[in-house]
Amino acid sequence: MSVKPERVILEQTAAAGTLRDTAVSHIGLRVPEVQATADFYGRVLGLVVQRELADGGLQMGWGTGHHVLDLLPGERSLAYYAFEVRDAGGMAGIRSRLEQAGAPVTEVDPALLDASIGDVESIETTDPDGNTVQFHSAVWRQGEGAGDPGRRPVKYQHITLGTVDVAPMTDWFTGVIGFRISDQLEDGRFAWMRSNKDHHTLAIVNVGARGNVDHYSFDLAEWEDFKSWCDKLTEQDVDVAWGPGRHGPGNNLFVFFDDPAGNHIELSAEMEKFYDDRVTYVARRWNPIPQSVNLWGGQLPNWRRVSGVQS
Amino acid sequence: MSVKPERVILEQTAAAGTLRDTAVSHIGLRVPEVQATADFYGRVLGLVVQRELADGGLQMGWGTGHHVLDLLPGERSLAYYAFEVRDAGGMAGIRSRLEQAGAPVTEVDPALLDASIGDVESIETTDPDGNTVQFHSAVWRQGEGAGDPGRRPVKYQHITLGTVDVAPMTDWFTGVIGFRISDQLEDGRFAWMRSNKDHHTLAIVNVGARGNVDHYSFDLAEWEDFKSWCDKLTEQDVDVAWGPGRHGPGNNLFVFFDDPAGNHIELSAEMEKFYDDRVTYVARRWNPIPQSVNLWGGQLPNWRRVSGVQS
Amino acid sequence: MSVKPERVILEQTAAAGTLRDTAVSHIGLRVPEVQATADFYGRVLGLVVQRELADGGLQMGWGTGHHVLDLLPGERSLAYYAFEVRDAGGMAGIRSRLEQAGAPVTEVDPALLDASIGDVESIETTDPDGNTVQFHSAVWRQGEGAGDPGRRPVKYQHITLGTVDVAPMTDWFTGVIGFRISDQLEDGRFAWMRSNKDHHTLAIVNVGARGNVDHYSFDLAEWEDFKSWCDKLTEQDVDVAWGPGRHGPGNNLFVFFDDPAGNHIELSAEMEKFYDDRVTYVARRWNPIPQSVNLWGGQLPNWRRVSGVQS
Amino acid sequence: MSVKPERVILEQTAAAGTLRDTAVSHIGLRVPEVQATADFYGRVLGLVVQRELADGGLQMGWGTGHHVLDLLPGERSLAYYAFEVRDAGGMAGIRSRLEQAGAPVTEVDPALLDASIGDVESIETTDPDGNTVQFHSAVWRQGEGAGDPGRRPVKYQHITLGTVDVAPMTDWFTGVIGFRISDQLEDGRFAWMRSNKDHHTLAIVNVGARGNVDHYSFDLAEWEDFKSWCDKLTEQDVDVAWGPGRHGPGNNLFVFFDDPAGNHIELSAEMEKFYDDRVTYVARRWNPIPQSVNLWGGQLPNWRRVSGVQS
Amino acid sequence: MSVKPERVILEQTAAAGTLRDTAVSHIGLRVPEVQATADFYGRVLGLVVQRELADGGLQMGWGTGHHVLDLLPGERSLAYYAFEVRDAGGMAGIRSRLEQAGAPVTEVDPALLDASIGDVESIETTDPDGNTVQFHSAVWRQGEGAGDPGRRPVKYQHITLGTVDVAPMTDWFTGVIGFRISDQLEDGRFAWMRSNKDHHTLAIVNVGARGNVDHYSFDLAEWEDFKSWCDKLTEQDVDVAWGPGRHGPGNNLFVFFDDPAGNHIELSAEMEKFYDDRVTYVARRWNPIPQSVNLWGGQLPNWRRVSGVQS
Amino acid sequence: MSVKPERVILEQTAAAGTLRDTAVSHIGLRVPEVQATADFYGRVLGLVVQRELADGGLQMGWGTGHHVLDLLPGERSLAYYAFEVRDAGGMAGIRSRLEQAGAPVTEVDPALLDASIGDVESIETTDPDGNTVQFHSAVWRQGEGAGDPGRRPVKYQHITLGTVDVAPMTDWFTGVIGFRISDQLEDGRFAWMRSNKDHHTLAIVNVGARGNVDHYSFDLAEWEDFKSWCDKLTEQDVDVAWGPGRHGPGNNLFVFFDDPAGNHIELSAEMEKFYDDRVTYVARRWNPIPQSVNLWGGQLPNWRRVSGVQS
Repeated sequence: MSVKPERVILEQTAAAGTLRDTAVSHIGLRVPEVQATADFYGRVLGLVVQRELADGGLQMGWGTGHHVLDLLPGERSLAYYAFEVRDAGGMAGIRSRLEQAGAPVTEVDPALLDASIGDVESIETTDPDGNTVQFHSAVWRQGEGAGDPGRRPVKYQHITLGTVDVAPMTDWFTGVIGFRISDQLEDGRFAWMRSNKDHHTLAIVNVGARGNVDHYSFDLAEWEDFKSWCDKLTEQDVDVAWGPGRHGPGNNLFVFFDDPAGNHIELSAEMEKFYDDRVTYVARRWNPIPQSVNLWGGQLPNWRRVSGVQS
Repeated sequence: MSVKPERVILEQTAAAGTLRDTAVSHIGLRVPEVQATADFYGRVLGLVVQRELADGGLQMGWGTGHHVLDLLPGERSLAYYAFEVRDAGGMAGIRSRLEQAGAPVTEVDPALLDASIGDVESIETTDPDGNTVQFHSAVWRQGEGAGDPGRRPVKYQHITLGTVDVAPMTDWFTGVIGFRISDQLEDGRFAWMRSNKDHHTLAIVNVGARGNVDHYSFDLAEWEDFKSWCDKLTEQDVDVAWGPGRHGPGNNLFVFFDDPAGNHIELSAEMEKFYDDRVTYVARRWNPIPQSVNLWGGQLPNWRRVSGVQS
Repeated sequence: MSVKPERVILEQTAAAGTLRDTAVSHIGLRVPEVQATADFYGRVLGLVVQRELADGGLQMGWGTGHHVLDLLPGERSLAYYAFEVRDAGGMAGIRSRLEQAGAPVTEVDPALLDASIGDVESIETTDPDGNTVQFHSAVWRQGEGAGDPGRRPVKYQHITLGTVDVAPMTDWFTGVIGFRISDQLEDGRFAWMRSNKDHHTLAIVNVGARGNVDHYSFDLAEWEDFKSWCDKLTEQDVDVAWGPGRHGPGNNLFVFFDDPAGNHIELSAEMEKFYDDRVTYVARRWNPIPQSVNLWGGQLPNWRRVSGVQS
Repeated sequence: MSVKPERVILEQTAAAGTLRDTAVSHIGLRVPEVQATADFYGRVLGLVVQRELADGGLQMGWGTGHHVLDLLPGERSLAYYAFEVRDAGGMAGIRSRLEQAGAPVTEVDPALLDASIGDVESIETTDPDGNTVQFHSAVWRQGEGAGDPGRRPVKYQHITLGTVDVAPMTDWFTGVIGFRISDQLEDGRFAWMRSNKDHHTLAIVNVGARGNVDHYSFDLAEWEDFKSWCDKLTEQDVDVAWGPGRHGPGNNLFVFFDDPAGNHIELSAEMEKFYDDRVTYVARRWNPIPQSVNLWGGQLPNWRRVSGVQS
Repeated sequence: MSVKPERVILEQTAAAGTLRDTAVSHIGLRVPEVQATADFYGRVLGLVVQRELADGGLQMGWGTGHHVLDLLPGERSLAYYAFEVRDAGGMAGIRSRLEQAGAPVTEVDPALLDASIGDVESIETTDPDGNTVQFHSAVWRQGEGAGDPGRRPVKYQHITLGTVDVAPMTDWFTGVIGFRISDQLEDGRFAWMRSNKDHHTLAIVNVGARGNVDHYSFDLAEWEDFKSWCDKLTEQDVDVAWGPGRHGPGNNLFVFFDDPAGNHIELSAEMEKFYDDRVTYVARRWNPIPQSVNLWGGQLPNWRRVSGVQS
Repeated sequence: MSVKPERVILEQTAAAGTLRDTAVSHIGLRVPEVQATADFYGRVLGLVVQRELADGGLQMGWGTGHHVLDLLPGERSLAYYAFEVRDAGGMAGIRSRLEQAGAPVTEVDPALLDASIGDVESIETTDPDGNTVQFHSAVWRQGEGAGDPGRRPVKYQHITLGTVDVAPMTDWFTGVIGFRISDQLEDGRFAWMRSNKDHHTLAIVNVGARGNVDHYSFDLAEWEDFKSWCDKLTEQDVDVAWGPGRHGPGNNLFVFFDDPAGNHIELSAEMEKFYDDRVTYVARRWNPIPQSVNLWGGQLPNWRRVSGVQS
């Protein structure tokens, strides 16, 4: 930390905050071994296969809930990620701002979507890093989280994308899509964005490479469940990779472990809420030190080798 | 409170206590906007549409559970309410006492009922206020309550009917149907009746008008869930209308909020139990003061303008 | 206790510990009144009928989970019990060791099995007591435990078999099948065996007769649930027969009640874990006194009249 | 139960309910080995010796709290029991009614009392069984309960006196002293009386002999503590004698164990509250069956051999 | 809300944030009946009298802890309030900035202070409203909070002062003393300031009059304790005046009740933390609506008649 | 792990298990800055100074409890450690076995001891590593743990000594003193010993040097407290150094942080119990891998550089 880190204030333009009822809905990951990875998600997370895709992929979700994870054959990479837009006029606004920005907009096959509330609308575009991102209208979500108690059920919560340059991504998500920045690292290498009352539904981190998720996260109900989960993971021969701890940005409790393809999975609880309809906020700027991403202490997971947060 | 309130002791005749394993099973509400109201119940309570009715109504329940709520198009009013009678010989007894009392008894279309245990039996009659009330034999109830943890699941618990005169209603429910009075306000304007081990499955309150529910209630597992629920309601832009607090009659914890049609919904826990097979009880009489309906303090919801309980 | 009890050390041969990911999956019980017993399991345990069997029997399980209980018409007795073998090469090893031991091995009709993960394999043989025991390959288990919160859900945990001689049974289960002994009573009349990280998935107790389960057990999430369950059982007019208490062997919390056919059902939590991949264990030997089976005190259930544990 | 039990309704006269803020404050027990018994209360209950009495007795309490237990040398028996009267005018009323009833009233040495709030007043009389009973004015009670967490602290709650005839005792406590009956067994052999909002602060049970406590009780904060306590008792080689269970009268959770002199100690939680300032109650009458004193099931402690409650 | 409220941004000058380890330590209240009020604080809050003051006042605190409340004879008003400054160089800095600002600075009699850590330093000055405010160096605080479990113990947390003009007060506390603004209402009529990691240790609200506390607050450990407290207050005939609810600014859970002199007492938990050593914050601005001070709903206590928060 | 580790079975001779009611009572540490270190223990652990020692040292404990920590001026090192022997005849047995072994035995000044139960007895000797170790008879322990809730109180639990050779230490503690080995690492470089029902009260680890504690430990009541503690430590600018996690040997939950002198402090809960009066145990042998000391995953604290447990 002897070299003074650069200070970068990530800007937000007019559209920022347009979306207030939008949440991550599913993610598509390419993994080398689809079946073994699906077995892991069934055994450890309680997900079930809801649909087999044409190319050998599998759509997984909880019981009667919407699907949250698509596993597709291929080298480990991010195939696409998707948001459910529940804001009134939200889909139309995104579509219009994307067209204004000259971004490619194509329709997604409605057959791949969960049961819709009202008319189905689902579009696909490309984020500044070239990742495929989808936006779709409201789906029936009841049943999500109806997993096994004991192995206390969870909600699909957020995605953190790895990139080589954070600002173009946050510019696009705030200026074109309508997210808002909640927190950033002072050096501009990590940013957390919100699109509903949760502190973040999407985060962007500079990991020195594009095209992968840094990690993604499920919600637990409470701290008590972290013990149950760590004990269950041990029973299933899955090592905890980081935590339990508490993040600075978002103030949420966390614990991390890996899937067989090497994707980092986070379990989280107690995330800070934002009430944009009642309050005027300014994004906070955190020191790029380990204690910012774990308030309780300075240990980092061994996989965070390239990051704005280093010890 | 300067005027001395009248003292009314609600009587109970011979049939009182005949039913000991009978519970509220569903309620039919007319609401102006069926779809928007159903969306609310899906989003906030976790109910799913289980059946579409001929007239545009919707039957809702939890996952694999029995249905608990029918939403029917029309001005806001009570369409019907129903009890599941699990007492041995219970259905026959009610039918016989109704006939003896000269009440109209018609059969309900079994197709509208949930999966039955043993032979289906379902009858419909009219209570002294002219409301339609149904009684049916045991149905499979597993799965009720298998809602989302975090948003901790609930049981359908009781109905409180608004009326202009409490005594005819309690006379009928104790004398003809076989319920028993657990508690009453001393002025006779509010009464709580039981038909199983719960302190009440049905309550009657003088609100100056007939033909509506005063409120109805779902059970939570414990106090911890009241915080989760209040926080979730806030996330969903639903205001708490009353509580959290603790009722005198029933000693149950409570919190209230409204559905889009203006129906008052209660969440409840820790309700007092009655063991009629082991104990001889006499109904208690409470002072008609706000502290009786909220032991913790005197605040009343702003919608309880006409009531036996006034500040 | 004036007579010095004999000391018996139950031996374990080479195959002991071969299985490390094997668990009890279902049990078949003959009961005089199948329908009434099924109603009890639906009402009290939240099980649903998943399949009707040819001979009037019923397969029951939780919601979308695998089946855990078969009720078959007949005098009260054990029809069969079954284990799911998830160990790599586990089924082949059991089959080969059974054949080497000259035991009868027949295939089970795959139609009676739950949805399989990978190829189905299911065999049936006879244990030294003449009981039918099945072993089958991995099945999809998601949904087990998705019961009603409040009536907090459970996992199917272990079976305890009654016998007249413990050693032949433990010899066979350790030497031929590949279980391992965790604890025994010093007099050799009770033994607890493991086949995964749980302290026991199978126990054998000398009750002076063959051909019945002594009891079987479901897991609760935590101590808090024991109060909820005891209160719920009381509401359903089911008496607690033993406990709540804490076992010595396994260190698990417990409470017992009976089904209508007289089978003893245990609810359990906090069972001790064994980590055979990291530790070398030697089976412990407990004094045959009531305080060994209930660390908290010396009361025994009134049905444990013939046992290695007497007061 | 083939012999029809007699039905006795315990009467209450005009003074009943005069006291509404009176609680048990301490008890004096004669025990053969004062020091060993005091060690037990220090080790297990966390009590400390607060004062040495002239005759070799010891006054014990928690840290800075008032004293709750006097151990006096002698054969095991009840030396005296005492109530703190916080009702306005309460002491004067009791004194006057005692004099009216011709009962002996003497002053207690104020030096034996804890720090008083306002003027000290402390009188001693004899109950119908000949037991010495004391009533004194308010004392500073802060610090009571400041015991060790983990070994979660407790409040001194109630006394149950053994007798040969219940009615004279309840007549005296309701008619002369001013208590009120909350519950009774239908055969009149057990009665629970209140003098504040707790369901009972004093109970009377026919055990076939006079002059001893049947048991006395401390409050725990919640169910969770019952597990901690049972585990702690086990660590300290103290057997649980009855429970955990839930009483019918009072609805409180309970567990029992014995002190070295053979006195029965109860730990209790969740006791029902009475709001006499808001409600008119009639005492309930319970069947004299084991399920009345343990709602969860029919096991009785082995020391309840002579009682109104028998199996 | 038809009239557009004025928007006021409360400024913070250079000294803001100088203090990072400073907390409210005690408050002096004039009350008409000192003894009765002290009895209330002993009975309800568990405070004990630690010292009698010359003028008939009483210093109260918990057991071995520092004193938190001085009750002084007189009309109900604020006599003084005090902060413990643990910052290195904190006392010297405050003294120097006060002198620079021309404020009167006098020494407080050290005999009135609790046991000091290191050299005692204690000064008194006057805030812009003319209230007496004290700052003193670190005192031994162990034992604070060692109250009675069940009646779960608390920490003395913050003071909210009533005023007629918020800005001069926040100017002085940020510019001269060294506090920092965490949140404000958009109309500038309510502001929350921090001096350690808690969201606020001091708040200022425009209530149309000077010289009184608006309310002051104690910390509870967790939500579970709110039920215990509300039930205990009910047992002690103390009405809850507002809540339970959750504040917007500070995000803390709350419940309010009054002392006999009419002072409003808050119990609080889960207050938001600020990490000024790691993060750059900008004070948030909340809409002046009831939902800002109770996120769960719009009910206000009946005593908040004049306020920036109105319905 | 490519080099095969040596396998060492630590032996236990006849005296092993003699002690069954003996526990660590206090520890004396030399630290460079006594006052600053005492401030830390007051602020973070809630300890208070109970006595000032002649040489500038301080005895610390909780409120009315016995002392648990002596801070003595000097370079960081272990001055002495002490056990309270509650076994009947325990002190005499240790003294006699020490004399038989030719160990030096001197009396400790009784003035330095806490209030004794019965006659005081306190001796001092030297362990094989040359550390001073004391054994004393029973002291009054009530009040230990009466710390601040919120900052939930603790019990002083165990000491782990660093050494260069484990076997001589375990030989002496089992063969001469009367402890018993519960668990060991397979390579013999770490051993856990018990002297009451806790899995260990003393552990010995090869850290390549003599004369220091490796760490020492306090008990928390439950997992919930680990979150409170980690949050409190963060508030007090103390970093968590390791955990939260769960140990293999002892199965206890843990978290570690350092005092200002660099001593490692552990907080622990859920430690395994041993019932030597009912069970025959054989010490278990764990693989010397990180997952043995943290079942949840392989992270080690950065200060465990020389150890039998390496990654």
